Amino acid sequence: MKPILVIHGPNLQLLGTRQVSIYGRVNLATINRRLRALASSLGVRLTILQSNHEGEMVEAIGRAKGRYAAIVINPAAYTHTSIAIRDAVEAVRVPTIEVHLSNIHAREAFRQQSLIAPVCRGQICGFGAESYLLGLQAALGLGRMGR
Amino acid sequence: MKPILVIHGPNLQLLGTRQVSIYGRVNLATINRRLRALASSLGVRLTILQSNHEGEMVEAIGRAKGRYAAIVINPAAYTHTSIAIRDAVEAVRVPTIEVHLSNIHAREAFRQQSLIAPVCRGQICGFGAESYLLGLQAALGLGRMGR
Amino acid sequence: MKPILVIHGPNLQLLGTRQVSIYGRVNLATINRRLRALASSLGVRLTILQSNHEGEMVEAIGRAKGRYAAIVINPAAYTHTSIAIRDAVEAVRVPTIEVHLSNIHAREAFRQQSLIAPVCRGQICGFGAESYLLGLQAALGLGRMGR
Amino acid sequence: MKPILVIHGPNLQLLGTRQVSIYGRVNLATINRRLRALASSLGVRLTILQSNHEGEMVEAIGRAKGRYAAIVINPAAYTHTSIAIRDAVEAVRVPTIEVHLSNIHAREAFRQQSLIAPVCRGQICGFGAESYLLGLQAALGLGRMGR
Amino acid sequence: MKPILVIHGPNLQLLGTRQVSIYGRVNLATINRRLRALASSLGVRLTILQSNHEGEMVEAIGRAKGRYAAIVINPAAYTHTSIAIRDAVEAVRVPTIEVHLSNIHAREAFRQQSLIAPVCRGQICGFGAESYLLGLQAALGLGRMGR
Amino acid sequence: MKPILVIHGPNLQLLGTRQVSIYGRVNLATINRRLRALASSLGVRLTILQSNHEGEMVEAIGRAKGRYAAIVINPAAYTHTSIAIRDAVEAVRVPTIEVHLSNIHAREAFRQQSLIAPVCRGQICGFGAESYLLGLQAALGLGRMGR
Amino acid sequence: MKPILVIHGPNLQLLGTRQVSIYGRVNLATINRRLRALASSLGVRLTILQSNHEGEMVEAIGRAKGRYAAIVINPAAYTHTSIAIRDAVEAVRVPTIEVHLSNIHAREAFRQQSLIAPVCRGQICGFGAESYLLGLQAALGLGRMGR
Amino acid sequence: MKPILVIHGPNLQLLGTRQVSIYGRVNLATINRRLRALASSLGVRLTILQSNHEGEMVEAIGRAKGRYAAIVINPAAYTHTSIAIRDAVEAVRVPTIEVHLSNIHAREAFRQQSLIAPVCRGQICGFGAESYLLGLQAALGLGRMGR
Amino acid sequence: MKPILVIHGPNLQLLGTRQVSIYGRVNLATINRRLRALASSLGVRLTILQSNHEGEMVEAIGRAKGRYAAIVINPAAYTHTSIAIRDAVEAVRVPTIEVHLSNIHAREAFRQQSLIAPVCRGQICGFGAESYLLGLQAALGLGRMGR
Amino acid sequence: MKPILVIHGPNLQLLGTRQVSIYGRVNLATINRRLRALASSLGVRLTILQSNHEGEMVEAIGRAKGRYAAIVINPAAYTHTSIAIRDAVEAVRVPTIEVHLSNIHAREAFRQQSLIAPVCRGQICGFGAESYLLGLQAALGLGRMGR
Amino acid sequence: MKPILVIHGPNLQLLGTRQVSIYGRVNLATINRRLRALASSLGVRLTILQSNHEGEMVEAIGRAKGRYAAIVINPAAYTHTSIAIRDAVEAVRVPTIEVHLSNIHAREAFRQQSLIAPVCRGQICGFGAESYLLGLQAALGLGRMGR
Amino acid sequence: MKPILVIHGPNLQLLGTRQVSIYGRVNLATINRRLRALASSLGVRLTILQSNHEGEMVEAIGRAKGRYAAIVINPAAYTHTSIAIRDAVEAVRVPTIEVHLSNIHAREAFRQQSLIAPVCRGQICGFGAESYLLGLQAALGLGRMGR
Repeated sequence: MKPILVIHGPNLQLLGTRQVSIYGRVNLATINRRLRALASSLGVRLTILQSNHEGEMVEAIGRAKGRYAAIVINPAAYTHTSIAIRDAVEAVRVPTIEVHLSNIHAREAFRQQSLIAPVCRGQICGFGAESYLLGLQAALGLGRMGR
Repeated sequence: MKPILVIHGPNLQLLGTRQVSIYGRVNLATINRRLRALASSLGVRLTILQSNHEGEMVEAIGRAKGRYAAIVINPAAYTHTSIAIRDAVEAVRVPTIEVHLSNIHAREAFRQQSLIAPVCRGQICGFGAESYLLGLQAALGLGRMGR
Repeated sequence: MKPILVIHGPNLQLLGTRQVSIYGRVNLATINRRLRALASSLGVRLTILQSNHEGEMVEAIGRAKGRYAAIVINPAAYTHTSIAIRDAVEAVRVPTIEVHLSNIHAREAFRQQSLIAPVCRGQICGFGAESYLLGLQAALGLGRMGR
Repeated sequence: MKPILVIHGPNLQLLGTRQVSIYGRVNLATINRRLRALASSLGVRLTILQSNHEGEMVEAIGRAKGRYAAIVINPAAYTHTSIAIRDAVEAVRVPTIEVHLSNIHAREAFRQQSLIAPVCRGQICGFGAESYLLGLQAALGLGRMGR
Repeated sequence: MKPILVIHGPNLQLLGTRQVSIYGRVNLATINRRLRALASSLGVRLTILQSNHEGEMVEAIGRAKGRYAAIVINPAAYTHTSIAIRDAVEAVRVPTIEVHLSNIHAREAFRQQSLIAPVCRGQICGFGAESYLLGLQAALGLGRMGR
Repeated sequence: MKPILVIHGPNLQLLGTRQVSIYGRVNLATINRRLRALASSLGVRLTILQSNHEGEMVEAIGRAKGRYAAIVINPAAYTHTSIAIRDAVEAVRVPTIEVHLSNIHAREAFRQQSLIAPVCRGQICGFGAESYLLGLQAALGLGRMGR
Repeated sequence: MKPILVIHGPNLQLLGTRQVSIYGRVNLATINRRLRALASSLGVRLTILQSNHEGEMVEAIGRAKGRYAAIVINPAAYTHTSIAIRDAVEAVRVPTIEVHLSNIHAREAFRQQSLIAPVCRGQICGFGAESYLLGLQAALGLGRMGR
Repeated sequence: MKPILVIHGPNLQLLGTRQVSIYGRVNLATINRRLRALASSLGVRLTILQSNHEGEMVEAIGRAKGRYAAIVINPAAYTHTSIAIRDAVEAVRVPTIEVHLSNIHAREAFRQQSLIAPVCRGQICGFGAESYLLGLQAALGLGRMGR
Repeated sequence: MKPILVIHGPNLQLLGTRQVSIYGRVNLATINRRLRALASSLGVRLTILQSNHEGEMVEAIGRAKGRYAAIVINPAAYTHTSIAIRDAVEAVRVPTIEVHLSNIHAREAFRQQSLIAPVCRGQICGFGAESYLLGLQAALGLGRMGR
Repeated sequence: MKPILVIHGPNLQLLGTRQVSIYGRVNLATINRRLRALASSLGVRLTILQSNHEGEMVEAIGRAKGRYAAIVINPAAYTHTSIAIRDAVEAVRVPTIEVHLSNIHAREAFRQQSLIAPVCRGQICGFGAESYLLGLQAALGLGRMGR
Repeated sequence: MKPILVIHGPNLQLLGTRQVSIYGRVNLATINRRLRALASSLGVRLTILQSNHEGEMVEAIGRAKGRYAAIVINPAAYTHTSIAIRDAVEAVRVPTIEVHLSNIHAREAFRQQSLIAPVCRGQICGFGAESYLLGLQAALGLGRMGR
Repeated sequence: MKPILVIHGPNLQLLGTRQVSIYGRVNLATINRRLRALASSLGVRLTILQSNHEGEMVEAIGRAKGRYAAIVINPAAYTHTSIAIRDAVEAVRVPTIEVHLSNIHAREAFRQQSLIAPVCRGQICGFGAESYLLGLQAALGLGRMGR
């Protein structure tokens, strides 16, 4: 089976120190360790990257075609502003799952609209680091969805 | 541990025959069977109900306080029109997870806004029957979220 | 030939006494009598129901699949607020005709938008009780439309 | 009894060849023949005209006062852009019925709003050529409405 | 003198336990007791009902015509979503007073617009249980208003 | 106990002659007499002023701190345009009750939004002169609200 | 001095019989007679035309350059829908005055916005036939404006 | 005959020095002299006042009832922000004519909407000082309008 | 090869004298001469027409089916207001290219939205007379596009 | 050098007691003392006034022409509602600097839009009493800006 | 003559494999080859670059001043989101032509608005690879436009 | 004391040559020199960087925590489009001051809304290079604000 690509968007390198009341105390290394542990137990390989650059994220997605079974992406702030990332996801046609640490529907109005979700398979938000783990499970379950 | 309440909203009794291109061929009995199997393997009890009546859903949620550890709800059409269900969720303060079979962010504009998600812990959508199973796992993981 | 289902929405039980300048003096019994007379002359059976409950209307439509040749519905106030009824109509794929006693396009702004019409075959409004009779004729003529 | 004026708006001369999936295969001559047959059976005379010119339609309506018992009009594209036709209908106070071949409420957003319907008695849409026949019947039934 | 109908809308059965910072600690039984005491002192009879069902509220209002001198209603969540309740109030023409425990104008934007207030005599909000008592006094004072 | 400040906004000096169908025939002197009678019976002193000047109203409210137990204000036209009065109310933190003679929710769209209500304790509208009397009672009942 | 061009837009041929409560009982011939009398007394020649055709109005304005000192136009319904007439006025740079019989600012929202006024010298509305006479005087006074 | 009240709104005391490209070089004294000359020739008395205070303008209008045959008002900036002046005009029911020096429809979007025009008889704008003179003539012609 | 139809919309007969800063000094005869020269060198015949009448443009497009290989149209003001022209283009299914002399995206907001472009193959704007020549080349290149 | 005019808008007389979490504990006398000290050290004279009256502020600005080198104004609530103050600033063409104690961009939506800033040289907000001192420095630096 | 700069925006490196129904089967190398062939035949040099990074595109445009005769740019997704690219184009004042492969006016609403077109000379869209070739011709023709 | 970080956003490297009427003739080197001179005189160190890359700016802010006493940032075009920069500022909780050369409130509508200002301490705009100097002084004065 092809590996799964996990992409962390802008400012997620600050996790654990940033706005603890919203994002919790867990940091990115811990999330990645938990993701790798789950992937290992499920027999799937992961490639994980973090970037603050819209262009880098566009390019990482653009290269994913044929290499990855699925993408699990937390586009963070670019969720709401990047048509370029949306176009990349739509172009490569690798099944993509959008995840968010916080419940974006309970925050500022401008965070409730995702430009990227409409071209993803689905969206999972609000469960902290668990959002990623659920997203990974969802990626593996896509074959079972029969769509 | 207290059981978990699963609520299916309006028209979900038609599942499997209704708009297969959007909702897939699985029917409600199958979803419930898969939910019960997962719950059983995880050692948690479930109460499952389906209703087409906003008032019944309001009352079911209203009675949940102190009885259930969490609610997994697919409010279906009421997602976008029911402030009464929102108020019920907010009133009982039982952690609630909103799930949808389809990716509501890829559908008509009026389906992209949830009145209920802002008072839930999180939202999972787009994975067909898997959305419920992920929602159940998320419910059980809430304790680990450290929020 | 299968019968036709006629559904009267909320407050229509008050017809004849309610806002005579808008809805006229005819009451629901008279409309039903005229509908039955026309149906009888055209050799088609009718099932008629009135409900003030969105959930009951959803369920009546949900049960219509395979039982009725068409639905003639006056969703009244739910025309403008019920995605659940819209979903039910869309799910059962029984040809549905929306009718209104008054010309909704000549009334308050919020009455000019129908959530249900987009999933119906057509809409007839403004002719008082005649709207129902025209709706019944339209239902019988659907076969001739060649769509 | 005074005759009834039927007005076909712009592009309807192309009917039968134009966008068959939306408007069906029937052409304008066939609609007019069916209208005349129904009128004849009901003992009412018809004047029928088609125009692509907003000004001509305004003038035809302007001359209708005192000459016609009712107007059945399909304003086509002018439905959504012509206040001049609206004003003409409002000025002559001949009861007017708006008809459409397609269900305008199921099409582009700009086709769902009629500038003319608010000054008409009612609107009938979605039944192909039948919309005109129902409109003619509605025109004859206006006396029975008791408004 | 005819009695007065008091209607409590959805989720009000939870009062006293629900969101104390917004709604206070008083429960529905206490409000009803205070209402009955005031009514008794003023020599007027009350009928009180609570419902979570939009349809039931529509029907209760529909039956009020000729039986009640006035209606005091807290439509709660349905304030903002129910055209059916609005239509019922408008249809029966029993003077109706809308009351709210909280100051809806100081809450979320969607709570600041009432669909029902435009067909009521007036609105009283923000005084907790006192809103009902003031509403009852207002109902008795309607005769003095000379409108 | 400290007295209560009653403020009448612009154009209220014209009451009784102005738009009788909306505001009734009662004039300002009568309202003030009824207010004083009620206050007297309840053992509370009143200061009453009328002003057409936004700045005067701002200053009267600004001076109220520590002198008045509550303010009952009918800001009239300034309800919808004056952030300065809103700021004054918010600044002095004297409990304030907004009253209106007419049911502002049944009038033009621009009268349905109050800039001042969000910083008041509550709003009472639609009962003519009774609105003021209810407002005075509400002011006295604020202590009982337990907020 | 060059003559002045007066243009009456669509439906104005119906004046005097049309909506008397809005437009009064005066007809177009009377307005023209009064205009000619005033022009004669002021020593200026008039060309007057009425058209229901947007294209004709565009052409009449297009030909005005160098021939007329000013245009007095009542674009009627085209006021709110015709960019073509706006472009014609802007193109010929003949000073143009927009007049209306009724006070368009007191009517439906869609009549309150003029597409043409921004390229005119000014607008006069609400004075019935007097609007034209004032417009003619304004046209003659343009030289005195010193702009 | 009763005199006519002319009201100049805020900043008009600066006329002649202020934004010459928009308002021209004429000052307020000149406008008043021209108004008095015209009034004198027409045999009507004028009262003229200028105020920068919304409240003063409200009071001047409020006192006009029964004293003035008409009001000619240039509300200047308050045109777009003052519901209080609108209410005053509506309350006194003295026929009122709104005038503007500049063509407000050719300026910033916020200047194109008048809160006061809907309760006036008509509006004249764009003719510099002539706007006032035309407004005075319109005031005298109101009797001839036959409305 | 079939000829190409070139349509010039309203006010374009004024070109060269009209708003030189926006449209340049070239007149329509020159544009047509340059178009014919280019067409001749490319071996394609042209039919060119100019009209100020929406209805004439609708009819010219309606007759184009089967007669022309493509349409190059500058709808001018009707770009933003004519659904009738849009419907004609959509109905005849002759590939159509929208051209504009000016860069409509750099002008007033209402000129930035084209009702017609969505049913055209493409849009070219901002290059003065060159826009037409590029449009003609684009029309000839449509075969090469492989769509 | 001409002096500088400092204007404090409505409710600022309450400073120091009003909403300390937003505006801090400093009062107006302290701000004025600090302003005078800075002005003195920079060799410039100040005129300082506070008003709660829009009309007074309009007049103070109107008299500033030729008398003051610059205006430093905190229009407070009138920032968002007063076109009259905007017009005064625009009319006198004395360079004006808008200051605010709080960061208006971090507050309610209606406080984020300034009607006055577009006609000022610049805006400074969010620094408490320092905003005024920075504004005074900015006023003195205007000559250095080379615009 | 100075060379022309061609800029391909984000995701265009994927061309030929991406969404063939919208963008066709041609890839970027082919487009560049056709561009170079046309440039060569016209005697002009080209610099071509592709970037997925907004910042790189900003810098490339920023360096263009004085080096390039014109820019032909397909900003792709950044068309709708990048004010930075707009500012760069506006800053360097090198004539710029915006091109798009697809007809953006026939796609999602958010693709119909270009932030960059208002500062370009013109826009060409909808002709696949031909859009670039037409853009190059337009760039060479800019001298002939006489603006 | 910790140093202060100054960040110049996109296109600011072009300053001095770009749109002189808006931004003046000063270039970035001059601004930096003046900033360093002022900092030196005040005894504070500066780190200055310019970037056209949103991602670089995000990272520079992300690294600022604990290293800088404050940030003075001119986000230029990203002011209106970058939620990523906003999130970075919010995450690091280093006091940040937004500055702009031009008065953004006097420019295009899309430049009047800042996504970043709501998470800054304050905003200074409109004073050319002085905006930076005032921003630096404001940064040093933050300690005195007592918030």
